[in-house]
Amino acid sequence: MSKPIPEQLRDLFDKPALAHLATLMPDGRPQVTPVWCDYDGRSVRINTSAGRQKDKNLMRDGRVALSICDPDNPDRYLEVRGRVIERTLEGAEAHLDSLSRKYMGTDYPYRRPGDQAITYCIEPEHFTFMD
Amino acid sequence: MSKPIPEQLRDLFDKPALAHLATLMPDGRPQVTPVWCDYDGRSVRINTSAGRQKDKNLMRDGRVALSICDPDNPDRYLEVRGRVIERTLEGAEAHLDSLSRKYMGTDYPYRRPGDQAITYCIEPEHFTFMD
Repeated sequence: MSKPIPEQLRDLFDKPALAHLATLMPDGRPQVTPVWCDYDGRSVRINTSAGRQKDKNLMRDGRVALSICDPDNPDRYLEVRGRVIERTLEGAEAHLDSLSRKYMGTDYPYRRPGDQAITYCIEPEHFTFMD
Repeated sequence: MSKPIPEQLRDLFDKPALAHLATLMPDGRPQVTPVWCDYDGRSVRINTSAGRQKDKNLMRDGRVALSICDPDNPDRYLEVRGRVIERTLEGAEAHLDSLSRKYMGTDYPYRRPGDQAITYCIEPEHFTFMD
């Protein structure tokens, strides 16, 4: 069921455009927060810290949606619906630095003792967009 | 259970800051899209067209979450979780124009024949934020 991100909207992942990631709470209600993301050609990848609400929600139920607006054109946006196909600690600190360079221009400066970065890979299944 | 938006974050509703509204699909998956919104002191209000996916989802299950970033400070955001307390056609066209003036500086210019504006009032129940 995996589908590639439509070609004409891939530039959204090259820009420091925040994604708003919706997950599901234990009772099925939605939760949504801004996240950094990138696209590796197959998965949309986000990074979070172990034990956060997002992490708990994604471990329990991998069904997600995310919405990204073009910061240079408010009429352009992409919604991706999909599911988590991988949760990994491997390379997750380097991934966090890579996202930080994209969004802030520098390696991630806010690490606290005990923080454990985690990379989630999300397989896109459905899109809505305006372009 | 209704809670007022924290005072120090109300300015987000005075700015043309898009909200990303998460709703639930029939099978319980999340859906999320950018929307215009305002705050009337009690409810967060959004506007949509009759028959849209958002409208169908909100009629079936009024549990929502929305996330708003400060366009002037990417470290500042607010997440609101809550539920629909009203769906109304009354005043909905004027509400759409009011939102359009806030976000585009002009009355809503994209009406198409057959479009029916609908105002949804969302009662806030829970917040997460960074300020």
